[in-house]
Amino acid sequence: MTGKRDDSTIRVTYRLEIPALPGASLEKMAEKIASDQSTGTFTELPGETEEVRARCAARVVAVQPLESTDQPGFPRPEDPPGTHYLRGDVTIAFPLEAVGTDIAALMTITVGGVYSARGLSGVRVMDFDLPSAWACHPGPQFGIAGSRRLMDVAQGPMIASIIKPSLGLTPADTAQVVRELCEAGVDFIKDDEKLMSPGYSPLADRVAAIMPVIEDHQQKTGKRVLYAFGISSADPDVMMRNHDLVHAAGGAAAVVNINSVGYGGMSFLRKRSALCLHAHRNGWDILTRNPALGMEFRAYQKIWRLLGVDQFQVNGIAAKYWEPDDSFVRSFGDCLTPIFSEADCALPVVCSGQWGGQAPETFRRTGGRLDLMYLGGGGIHGHPMGARAGVTAIRQAWEAAEAGIALADYAGTRPELAASLARFAR
Amino acid sequence: MTGKRDDSTIRVTYRLEIPALPGASLEKMAEKIASDQSTGTFTELPGETEEVRARCAARVVAVQPLESTDQPGFPRPEDPPGTHYLRGDVTIAFPLEAVGTDIAALMTITVGGVYSARGLSGVRVMDFDLPSAWACHPGPQFGIAGSRRLMDVAQGPMIASIIKPSLGLTPADTAQVVRELCEAGVDFIKDDEKLMSPGYSPLADRVAAIMPVIEDHQQKTGKRVLYAFGISSADPDVMMRNHDLVHAAGGAAAVVNINSVGYGGMSFLRKRSALCLHAHRNGWDILTRNPALGMEFRAYQKIWRLLGVDQFQVNGIAAKYWEPDDSFVRSFGDCLTPIFSEADCALPVVCSGQWGGQAPETFRRTGGRLDLMYLGGGGIHGHPMGARAGVTAIRQAWEAAEAGIALADYAGTRPELAASLARFAR
Repeated sequence: MTGKRDDSTIRVTYRLEIPALPGASLEKMAEKIASDQSTGTFTELPGETEEVRARCAARVVAVQPLESTDQPGFPRPEDPPGTHYLRGDVTIAFPLEAVGTDIAALMTITVGGVYSARGLSGVRVMDFDLPSAWACHPGPQFGIAGSRRLMDVAQGPMIASIIKPSLGLTPADTAQVVRELCEAGVDFIKDDEKLMSPGYSPLADRVAAIMPVIEDHQQKTGKRVLYAFGISSADPDVMMRNHDLVHAAGGAAAVVNINSVGYGGMSFLRKRSALCLHAHRNGWDILTRNPALGMEFRAYQKIWRLLGVDQFQVNGIAAKYWEPDDSFVRSFGDCLTPIFSEADCALPVVCSGQWGGQAPETFRRTGGRLDLMYLGGGGIHGHPMGARAGVTAIRQAWEAAEAGIALADYAGTRPELAASLARFAR
Repeated sequence: MTGKRDDSTIRVTYRLEIPALPGASLEKMAEKIASDQSTGTFTELPGETEEVRARCAARVVAVQPLESTDQPGFPRPEDPPGTHYLRGDVTIAFPLEAVGTDIAALMTITVGGVYSARGLSGVRVMDFDLPSAWACHPGPQFGIAGSRRLMDVAQGPMIASIIKPSLGLTPADTAQVVRELCEAGVDFIKDDEKLMSPGYSPLADRVAAIMPVIEDHQQKTGKRVLYAFGISSADPDVMMRNHDLVHAAGGAAAVVNINSVGYGGMSFLRKRSALCLHAHRNGWDILTRNPALGMEFRAYQKIWRLLGVDQFQVNGIAAKYWEPDDSFVRSFGDCLTPIFSEADCALPVVCSGQWGGQAPETFRRTGGRLDLMYLGGGGIHGHPMGARAGVTAIRQAWEAAEAGIALADYAGTRPELAASLARFAR
């Protein structure tokens, strides 16, 4: 965000990298991008008028140099050996009149074309600063408050688990795992993101097998566990049928693989959805593993929140994937930073290799905010004393984190946490 | 493609890169990916059975080492100085039963999760080898034959142009440019991909201004120019309204910014579409500029063709963007290679900085196949003798290419081509 909101433009910040060849500068590259992405072409055009430029031309509004590098983000065999690369953050203001409020227009004009510009050795979209007109997008239907309501968890982290193995369980076997997890005391359970509606576990059969377990658990205990079914399809009609099937059976949440359905799929679903939408961002990693390329999560998640994501998976401390802790910490904060209002925040879902041991570090590094879902897979299923002890250990770890007590001390009188530490601590 | 089609699996080939640390091997990494993306998790699970593994486990079927490198695709500050990186192409077979035929499942299981694996320094999806069950997807409605029919061009390249400037023309001004281009003799005209439905040129007004020009030109000359309107929206309902508006006015084609609408948007549109769908792939570049990362066009375009792309922009020789000629040549061939049948090929659209001078090299390097659209922007609008001469020069250049005559010789008695050479040749 660049200070006070300017309601007539969309401001996009890019991290650019260019070879430091004679005459090259970040300013010139930024000007070229602004021209190419609004009114420019490669030769003079008789029809082009000053009025057009004034109304639709993009303008460079800031250039902030960063430390240069000798390792280009893209390989550039054409550069002489020993070439250095200039780096900097550049902000371009695109007139709202030229872009409008459609996400497809935003992505085409301010992102897609920029990635193709000649002469770069790196390009990364860092942030979108959107004018008030963009508050027209629906945003999350449930968000943090709605997620808490659905799980009846007034405060503190919501504790969640996932069905394992990812693929290959029959609906009946899945329902058995769901029963164990309900009895273990979780607030939320989800299908693995890889599970949608394969032949061996069609969604309809899975819903029919699982929902009675959820209902039965509620009858016995009063606790309604929120189950998120994998409804993703690249065909929005199929995804809506999946949605309706879950909703008709009393389900209240769904896992959506946002990159695999695309903006169109998410937009279509959100307008018709009665479910809490839990986003898995698989595929996004290719946009962020090389810091010189792609898109920062800060920019990415804004678009998906405007489209209606309620809960956003953001990995966690010491995740089993490649992502460094610092990246997770930034993502967590991004989800909880309003775009237009608190209501458009998404619940951060801390996940991947989590077993409770990371709770103190998560608590410390995210500023002690407890608006989060904490999702354990193997950390619950693989607990030496069983899944119930796995969930208890995670709750104990969060109590210790909040109280500022070391896990080893807190575990002294708590065998579940002690067993987790013995099994999972590295 | 890995030989004879195996109808029980989906085979995906990845170019992997890993640090050559003690004990590391491409085989081990491939096995880990196959496990993680099917039945694996980070700890032992009592419920996991051999039957499940047999039915749903992915298998490594080929490992082809490539030359190693000392420049990792992703920066890896954790590696000791002087680390080498192993590279190779790895093919993994995913059981069709575990994935099904949904593109969202394919992208989640075989792509999204792989991008997030720990321990890589590069990962690129090279190809999908799809079983016959995947022929269930609609594919192109018009393709090459349908495109020729709509433009009434029985053979040879279809000559096209684009409205410039990209942004900022009113509908009336745009219609004037369309009239000039029709009179110049093009077969096809398109909105710039950046033009969808902004406030200064709402799609409805643009259609109302342009279609009478197309009709009028047909009345006078008998030639119906195919106009592709920018109908993209991240909201499939809006995109369908745009589609209907174009179709009701007698329009027959549309520009779709495929990455900006996503799989869901494209799938929704194709099922209901009466228009020839001209794909702009803007945004794709970030998946290919670093050859160690992302996705090869060969893999990417298969998915979009199955979804229904009729015409695919693939840049051209000496494009104004970053893309090297070799990459364009591969892309051109990919569009013309059947997935299941000739009918699923897309018309390659050769574009970006094209003015005719690249025709001989294009002809030579693409094997002399003339099933293509050749799109000139500034090369037509900016021709010193006017747009009609610009189109004539392009047709002359293609005649010369096909006849194997040097452009300079062919231009001897052809002032339009001579003027293009004088103006645009570098």
